[in-house]
Amino acid sequence: MRKTSYESPSADSIIFNIIRNEGSINRTDLVANTGFAKSTVSLQINKLIETGIIQEIKPKKSENTVRKLQIEIVPDAGYVIGVFLGIHRLSISLFNLRMETILEAVYDLESILNPEFINRLIIKKIDLLISEAKIQKKSLWGIGLGFPFPVDFHQGISEAPPNLPLWHQYPVQAIYENHFSCPVLLDNDVNVMALGEAYSGIAQDENDFIFVKVGNGIGCGLFMEGRVYRGAKGSAGDIGHIALDRETKLCHCGNIGCLETIAAAPSIAQKGLEVAMTGDSPILQKKLAKNHKVTSKDVGEAAQMGDMFALRIIKESGKNLGSVLAKLVIFANPGMVVIGGGVTKSGTLYLSAIREEILRKATHIATIDLQIRYTDLQDKCGPIGSGRLIIEDIFSSRNFTKTIEGKFNIPNALQDNNGKFL
Amino acid sequence: MRKTSYESPSADSIIFNIIRNEGSINRTDLVANTGFAKSTVSLQINKLIETGIIQEIKPKKSENTVRKLQIEIVPDAGYVIGVFLGIHRLSISLFNLRMETILEAVYDLESILNPEFINRLIIKKIDLLISEAKIQKKSLWGIGLGFPFPVDFHQGISEAPPNLPLWHQYPVQAIYENHFSCPVLLDNDVNVMALGEAYSGIAQDENDFIFVKVGNGIGCGLFMEGRVYRGAKGSAGDIGHIALDRETKLCHCGNIGCLETIAAAPSIAQKGLEVAMTGDSPILQKKLAKNHKVTSKDVGEAAQMGDMFALRIIKESGKNLGSVLAKLVIFANPGMVVIGGGVTKSGTLYLSAIREEILRKATHIATIDLQIRYTDLQDKCGPIGSGRLIIEDIFSSRNFTKTIEGKFNIPNALQDNNGKFL
Repeated sequence: MRKTSYESPSADSIIFNIIRNEGSINRTDLVANTGFAKSTVSLQINKLIETGIIQEIKPKKSENTVRKLQIEIVPDAGYVIGVFLGIHRLSISLFNLRMETILEAVYDLESILNPEFINRLIIKKIDLLISEAKIQKKSLWGIGLGFPFPVDFHQGISEAPPNLPLWHQYPVQAIYENHFSCPVLLDNDVNVMALGEAYSGIAQDENDFIFVKVGNGIGCGLFMEGRVYRGAKGSAGDIGHIALDRETKLCHCGNIGCLETIAAAPSIAQKGLEVAMTGDSPILQKKLAKNHKVTSKDVGEAAQMGDMFALRIIKESGKNLGSVLAKLVIFANPGMVVIGGGVTKSGTLYLSAIREEILRKATHIATIDLQIRYTDLQDKCGPIGSGRLIIEDIFSSRNFTKTIEGKFNIPNALQDNNGKFL
Repeated sequence: MRKTSYESPSADSIIFNIIRNEGSINRTDLVANTGFAKSTVSLQINKLIETGIIQEIKPKKSENTVRKLQIEIVPDAGYVIGVFLGIHRLSISLFNLRMETILEAVYDLESILNPEFINRLIIKKIDLLISEAKIQKKSLWGIGLGFPFPVDFHQGISEAPPNLPLWHQYPVQAIYENHFSCPVLLDNDVNVMALGEAYSGIAQDENDFIFVKVGNGIGCGLFMEGRVYRGAKGSAGDIGHIALDRETKLCHCGNIGCLETIAAAPSIAQKGLEVAMTGDSPILQKKLAKNHKVTSKDVGEAAQMGDMFALRIIKESGKNLGSVLAKLVIFANPGMVVIGGGVTKSGTLYLSAIREEILRKATHIATIDLQIRYTDLQDKCGPIGSGRLIIEDIFSSRNFTKTIEGKFNIPNALQDNNGKFL
């Protein structure tokens, strides 16, 4: 029997999140926005001011002629960390409660094969960042982790693909919770990047979009009706293993013709290497002679310089990705497709090829207002998204009271008989 | 700037919908289920009893040893209508507020080309059903419509495909609202069928599933996180026009190799006709001689009798559908795929072929717990889903107060100074 579930957000969480969304707002507008009684708004505002999480300030004369008192989040009441792990790169950013970046750090990695080593490293680097920022550990309100493999979001454990066997069912979230004693959430890289785009990137006005990451693999984050959609088992968006019916190349997953095998960076680089070795592409031949390798970026650059064979490789890859995306666009009818990941560095010819194929193969209604764009956040997308993952969760109506109670010594006057926050 | 939206359901709507979900429940359990104070529950219950929409009754001795008073919906306090329009068939059902079927009627149709004629017919048949059930027009609380073409759900107008030009931007919802003076919602057939499965069919325990209808066309309803997902422009699930890369057949949409052209009922019938005419299939040859036509059902029956050529047609069609569904299963990771529509009458060989191809081509994680089944509601699915479409909407937290206010003379004691329901 299907049951409808009800979430009844508390007045304080509604008011706090409106302040957070608006940046700053006065009491009159809060009453208008919430529909709450003036007395309710006053009670809740005074309560929240007393905890120290919001403040009421006089705006500068030039900003506001009426000079109504403006309420805003106290930015340094707390902090969150966003960690984004790539195959060869680790990004860690520290944000205040307004999601303004306080400090950020990026590290190159040899390999992420060993989870024990990698998690120890990340913890060390977070500790370093906190101490550099001169922040007390208890001011850390949460950590969001974006990792480059499937995860069980609800349990906070990783579910690794065949090439990273040691990560399989590794209790990632618990390790960080134990060390930092704060809320931690783990999600895969593309879901976190979709969140980054949704809150800080080009998809801020879209309620329904898909974020496609093309790098060493191909994956996709689904943002539907304003939320990340994960599917029944959390594997939604795993599009790298959608097969192209015409193709015959064996994928490491055991199936044939998987998109990842045909259109991701290693495939572009491999095809580039071939035309470099035959000499068909003089530009790539020179690159190979100089660097002893050809990257997907090299192929993109050669294509933009007019190299015919490089051009064909880029166009073919974009077309293959576009062909799969056309089907998904028909199925899910997103308002935007955002393309991110390393391959976007190959230049916009790749984007054009993707666009062309989606428009050619998807239905009229699904493409008439569809935007197909490269991310403009680039490498910032991941750590921002990881920060969003945790900050939206700790301030959600479900967790708001717990978050506030855990962080402040609530004055007696604000507690009920059981010591709970009123 | 992305803004989080908040819906704060009222206490009465929460309580009413719990009663509706549970069938019957006592006050103590309501307090436990809602977390509301006993006094709040009492106040709201008494108020709702006074309106006549719920009642408190003594259970029979055998049912309940404690014999606590049980609260339940007054089933005949109101009614809703579910209309399901097919290309050749119209189904209309009348439900009470518990969604129990009071009366149902089915009519064959020659054609649905003319919207004026069809809507006038449907209105006449609804009037007939209401008068047969001896129900006053004001007891009709809402009408849900499931129509076999794309619709603009928010505007309540149809957006017809090329073969039904007169329906394009036809103000369907407004016509019914004007005639019946009650809330009306219009959605496409597959979304409505997905709702039917979600509330009354085999998908009652699934929060995430896709419903695939295979008949004269192929379409799909997406049920995600407990709700129908419609996409940015309302065209989500329009999978009939996803192309099979290998195929070359021209579709009426202008593209090549669309799934609908390869795997829907007309294509099965056409292939059946061919092997009937060549004599390759003696069974279908006889059918053709007798009926002067071959249907997809004929092909299914011949296949189940072991006819090799019919078997191959059914298997090929199932395989082609399965091949597209495998991609969508990877992308959306549903917990269940429900197959409905006329082609399910061709027997379970078709289902087996679909299953085989999905399991072969989709990823391990997306298929490990995936169920792939035929609907068990069959033709009831549509009208039940249309009824659900409207009843879930009128009792949603957004509309609950309006619904109750519109239907009852609220006693003065229950009104505030502005005459609003307290």
